[in-house]
Amino acid sequence: MTAEAAEDGWPFEDRGVAYGDGLFETVLVRDGRPLLWEEHLARLARGCRGLGIPRPDPARLARPLAEAPEGLSVLKLMLTRGSGGRGYAPPDPPEPRLRWRLAPFMPSPPRWRQGVRVRHCRLRLGIQPALAGIKHLNRLENVLARAEWADADTAEGLLCDSEGRLVEATCMNLFWQRNGLLETPRLDRCGVAGTLRAALLERLPIREVDAFPEALERVEALWLGNSLQGLWPVVRLDDARGRALQRWTLGQDHRRLQAEAHDVLGYPTRLDD
Amino acid sequence: MTAEAAEDGWPFEDRGVAYGDGLFETVLVRDGRPLLWEEHLARLARGCRGLGIPRPDPARLARPLAEAPEGLSVLKLMLTRGSGGRGYAPPDPPEPRLRWRLAPFMPSPPRWRQGVRVRHCRLRLGIQPALAGIKHLNRLENVLARAEWADADTAEGLLCDSEGRLVEATCMNLFWQRNGLLETPRLDRCGVAGTLRAALLERLPIREVDAFPEALERVEALWLGNSLQGLWPVVRLDDARGRALQRWTLGQDHRRLQAEAHDVLGYPTRLDD
Repeated sequence: MTAEAAEDGWPFEDRGVAYGDGLFETVLVRDGRPLLWEEHLARLARGCRGLGIPRPDPARLARPLAEAPEGLSVLKLMLTRGSGGRGYAPPDPPEPRLRWRLAPFMPSPPRWRQGVRVRHCRLRLGIQPALAGIKHLNRLENVLARAEWADADTAEGLLCDSEGRLVEATCMNLFWQRNGLLETPRLDRCGVAGTLRAALLERLPIREVDAFPEALERVEALWLGNSLQGLWPVVRLDDARGRALQRWTLGQDHRRLQAEAHDVLGYPTRLDD
Repeated sequence: MTAEAAEDGWPFEDRGVAYGDGLFETVLVRDGRPLLWEEHLARLARGCRGLGIPRPDPARLARPLAEAPEGLSVLKLMLTRGSGGRGYAPPDPPEPRLRWRLAPFMPSPPRWRQGVRVRHCRLRLGIQPALAGIKHLNRLENVLARAEWADADTAEGLLCDSEGRLVEATCMNLFWQRNGLLETPRLDRCGVAGTLRAALLERLPIREVDAFPEALERVEALWLGNSLQGLWPVVRLDDARGRALQRWTLGQDHRRLQAEAHDVLGYPTRLDD
């Protein structure tokens, strides 16, 4: 196996595959420039602290950007604790392994403009404060939740924790407007704290709250968002069997938060109905 | 990269490393013969059903055994959902990827004979019935728990779930004797259902119970066990800071369950004090 091939894949015994012992980031890159780069670096650093993995040099993390093509692409960075250790016991010192891949990316303007249909998932997220918020490689809950539906009309699934609180969607964060105020679920028990979410919390008065699904019955607008797709307004919410629970008509409320999010990502900020 | 090298490692995008989307088994092999093979196959099959991964042909899983050396070795089998899919959404149909490695193995007779010191871990296991019992690749909780101590005198750490019930140790199952009766924690909310545990439940009247750590104050004997190490009697239990909570003196109670477990694994059944 050449050194180049070795750089590309993972050895049999890498702890990333053995235990999901690592972290990842997916970064939107426009013409070689990473969007929300500080937020991605901050979350990765938080993950490294949480897992006890040495933080890679930011310059090393930025190196793949030199190879990014014109236009939009997505940079997937993966950092594992590397090989070694005795079973679950981590190696001391660890020699983390960093791998990355650049791929073309296309967001979905119809979802921006027309909004999306989402459903509640049956799966409940386990409560694990030690892993909450960070983007680690233990993502079986997301995989199982995403496998709950196959129809292309359903864009995302909403997840609650094992005590029933709203947390996130399978790969997006959740935002809503209630009585004119913006809110998003707290993520101190489970869930991934998205970088677009971090940027919006920084720019706007958004309250982090504990809320149950019933709260959605009284919201004026509901959105899903992440740093790749931007913000999708929700126009229909289904139960876990795909039966409509609730509908929203897109209006200026929806467009205001969307404009803010899209300004951060360089996506269109005017998406008039 | 040659085909042989490709067989050995994992491609960048394998879902095993991306999401921990897979399963593993570690099998004790004696002179080419796998111990508890039916139990390992049954757990793997249960995991495949739970994750929606096609079950590999048992004959294919047994193929590595032909290469096992004389004496004791451990066969690590890893099965991932393979590559593909759209993000968390699983590929349809999946093309699972199977990898394996054989390594020499040596159990620890001093731990059989003298017993071990264990401690409570601070980390609590998240409650996730969809993943409970199976040996999947999302093992960050085990890694974080195992990182709580570094002294070689402490053999294992006990884990409770987020509601405080005893579940398991970081890589072993838990058994105790209370009022002359054998018990082990139920594993329907979290934890890994070990193959030695399965064999003992089959052979002996062991009750699966919900129990809190206080229950250990009244047990006559406490053991940890798995299919590689056999059964370790616990002689000292510490709190999460390493201060002694409780001690046990080894006696005939301890030796009886140990003999049963070691009979299953072909380890010494007479370990008189």
